Amino acid sequence: MSEFVSKVDREARNRAAETLKKQFLTLVDQLERGEPLVMEIPKRTLTNTVYDEKRKLLLLGEEKMKRSFLDMNEARRFMQTVLMGSIIYDALVNDEYPTIRDLYYRGKHSIVLKDPRGKTHEENTWDEQKESDSVIIDIEVFTSLLREEMLILSKEKGKVVGDMRLRSGNDIIDLSKMGHGAYSIEPTPDLIDFVEVNAEYVLVVEKDAVFQQLHRAGFWRKYKCILITSAGQPDRATRRFLRRLNEELKLPVYILTDADPYGWYIYSVFRIGSISLSYESERLATPDAKFLGVSMGDIFGTPKKKAYLSERERSSFIIKAKDTDIKRALEIKNYEWFKTKSWEEEINMFLQKKSKLEIEAMASKGLKFLAFQYIPEKIQTRDFVG
Amino acid sequence: MSEFVSKVDREARNRAAETLKKQFLTLVDQLERGEPLVMEIPKRTLTNTVYDEKRKLLLLGEEKMKRSFLDMNEARRFMQTVLMGSIIYDALVNDEYPTIRDLYYRGKHSIVLKDPRGKTHEENTWDEQKESDSVIIDIEVFTSLLREEMLILSKEKGKVVGDMRLRSGNDIIDLSKMGHGAYSIEPTPDLIDFVEVNAEYVLVVEKDAVFQQLHRAGFWRKYKCILITSAGQPDRATRRFLRRLNEELKLPVYILTDADPYGWYIYSVFRIGSISLSYESERLATPDAKFLGVSMGDIFGTPKKKAYLSERERSSFIIKAKDTDIKRALEIKNYEWFKTKSWEEEINMFLQKKSKLEIEAMASKGLKFLAFQYIPEKIQTRDFVG
Repeated sequence: MSEFVSKVDREARNRAAETLKKQFLTLVDQLERGEPLVMEIPKRTLTNTVYDEKRKLLLLGEEKMKRSFLDMNEARRFMQTVLMGSIIYDALVNDEYPTIRDLYYRGKHSIVLKDPRGKTHEENTWDEQKESDSVIIDIEVFTSLLREEMLILSKEKGKVVGDMRLRSGNDIIDLSKMGHGAYSIEPTPDLIDFVEVNAEYVLVVEKDAVFQQLHRAGFWRKYKCILITSAGQPDRATRRFLRRLNEELKLPVYILTDADPYGWYIYSVFRIGSISLSYESERLATPDAKFLGVSMGDIFGTPKKKAYLSERERSSFIIKAKDTDIKRALEIKNYEWFKTKSWEEEINMFLQKKSKLEIEAMASKGLKFLAFQYIPEKIQTRDFVG
Repeated sequence: MSEFVSKVDREARNRAAETLKKQFLTLVDQLERGEPLVMEIPKRTLTNTVYDEKRKLLLLGEEKMKRSFLDMNEARRFMQTVLMGSIIYDALVNDEYPTIRDLYYRGKHSIVLKDPRGKTHEENTWDEQKESDSVIIDIEVFTSLLREEMLILSKEKGKVVGDMRLRSGNDIIDLSKMGHGAYSIEPTPDLIDFVEVNAEYVLVVEKDAVFQQLHRAGFWRKYKCILITSAGQPDRATRRFLRRLNEELKLPVYILTDADPYGWYIYSVFRIGSISLSYESERLATPDAKFLGVSMGDIFGTPKKKAYLSERERSSFIIKAKDTDIKRALEIKNYEWFKTKSWEEEINMFLQKKSKLEIEAMASKGLKFLAFQYIPEKIQTRDFVG
C-alpha cells in the first residue's frame, strides 16, 4: 500500500502517532509512579463554552474534567477512550485511513468477564456510533489533534474553482483548469499547500446548483475570486479550507445563502462554528466571514436602498415563512454573535414580513443579473449583514 | 458574459435552440393550415413503460398522447408546455444556464383575464415546482432533448479519479493528478470529450467516505481503474458519465454498495434507471453494470464459497433489517430485472437472515483487506450478483 501513499500523508501520520503516543504515555507514567489512573480533559459543556468577543470565536474555557479509571461511574468511558486511542494509533502506524464509522466498527465487540463468584458478565465496548463519536471528540480534545490530523477521513461535499494552484498529495492542481467541473476538496485540508493564488476574495455559495451557474458564466474569472460551494450545511473540511484561505492568504470571505434562518445558520457555522463543538471552532471557524445575502433589505428595500425585486417579482418569488422558521429566527436572535445592529434589523424585518426567498429566485431574474449586477454591486458597496 | 463561456457550450446551445424551435414550429404550421392545435407526446405512464429484455433497459413504449389546446381539460397543460418551451428557448439564446428551480420561478406568475361578462379571473401559471418539473419532462420527451442538452444545470455530487484525461469546456483535465481531492463531474456530461484513458474497469462506490479511503490507499493506481462515487443515490450526470465510460470506452462497470435493499436500489438506478422516468433510461442507464457487493454470500458464505466475515465479526457488524427493509426487498424481488437466479438467491438469503451490512464494516477489517483483497478477489473471480 505504502508505495502509493503520498509523502505528505506519511509525515502527517508520524506526527499524529507521536503526539497520540506521548499523550497516552502519561497514563503509563501514572502507573509507574503508583498513582491512580486519571485523564484530564478540557470540559466540553455549554457552561465551559465561551464566546471570545475579541477573536469572535466560540472557545472552550479553562475548566477541565478528570476521568478516573477507579471511579465506577467513569471506568467505562475511561476504557472506551483508551480503546479508541489504541485503535487510532494502530490505524496510523498501519497506513490505514479510517472513517468515524469504521472506527466504531473496529472497536465494537463484547467483553466477557467472570466475577469472583464465577458468574459471567458481558459488556459491549459501545452500542451506538454516538458513543464512539463522542470518544473520538474526547481524544481530539485530550491530544489537541483534530481527527483530520489523525488521518481519519470523512465524506466531503465542498467544491472549489478559481485562479489558484495548490499542492495536494504528490500533485499540483490548477483550479482554473477544471473545465465545467470543479475540484472536490480533500477531507484533510491542512495537508494542502497553497502554491499560487491570484484572487481578491472568496465567494461561498450555499447551493451547489448556483455554484454551477456562476462557474459556468465565468464569474470567478471576471471578478478574480475563488468560488466555493458547501452544498448545503458545510462539512469540516470545507470550513477548514475556507479558514485557511482567509487566515493565510488574507482573502475576504463572502457568504451567499437563501434569505431564511437556515441560510443564516449556514453562515453562522462558517463564521463561528457550532455551539456543541466549540473545541473545533478555533481551527475551523472564519470569524472574518461576511454575510453577503440574500438579505431582507435586498428583497424589500430599506430607507437607504432600493429593493432588488419589483412588487410583481416579490409576489411571485416570496415564500411564506413557516412556524419552524420563526422559531429558528428567535433562537438565532439570542446568539451573542447575532447581537449586532445590522443583524437585529435583518431578523426583525424577517419576523415582521414573515417572508423568505431562495437564491434561485434571484437567478431567475437572469443569471446576468445575479452574477454581474447583484453580487458585484453588493460587494462593491460593502452591503453586508454583519 | 459570452467572453467567458466555452465554445462547447455555445455549440450545444445552438443545437438545442434549433431543435426546440423546429419542434415548436410544428404548432405554427398547424395554425397556418387552420388546424386545431395539438401536441403529440410519447405517453409517460407505467403502462407505456416496457422492460426491453434484449437491451436490458426500461423504455417508453409506442403509445402517444395528444394534448389539444381546444380541450378544456388539456388547455392549461398545453399552455404550460408552450410557456416553458419559450422560457427555455430564451435562456438558450441569452447565454443563461437555468436550473429547474429557477425555471419554475421564471415562469411563475398570475394571468389575469376578463370573461365576456366583465368578470375578472386570475390563474397561476403553476403553483408548485412539481408542476413545472413535469412540464420540463414533457418538453424533453417532445423534443428528444435531455435537459442537460438544453444547458439546464443542477447540483452534482459525483466524483471521479483515475488514469484518464478528459476535455471539459476549454480545459484538459488529468484525473490522475487530483492529489487527495477528486474531480467533480460537470452537470452536462455529454459535453465531455474522453481524450485518453488507461483503465481496465470502472468501480463505483456508493459512499463518498469509502471512495476517499480507496483513493487515498492508491486503489485505482494499483488496479488501473476509474474510481467513481455517486455519494448516495446517483444523480443524472453521474449516471450519464458512467454510461458513456461503459458504452464508448467499453469499460466493465462494478458497483459496490451496502448489503441492503437500499444498496440494491442504487445499483438498480445505475443499471436500469428509475421506473417513473424511463424516458431518460435510454441515455442514462448502464445495463452492463454488475453488482460487486457487498452480497449476502460475502457475509454468510454459500455452499460454493467461504464467508469474508468470521462468526465473531458477524455478531459485531451485522445490523438487523427493519420492516421497511423487508418491504423494500419484496418490492425489488418483483422487478423484472431482479428476476435472475443469483438475485433471487441474494434476496431470499436476505429475507431469511434479516440482516444487512455496511461497507464500512468491511473497511473496519482493515483498508488493506477491503482494497487489496476483498474487491480485487471479487472482480477476479467474477463473483457478481447479476
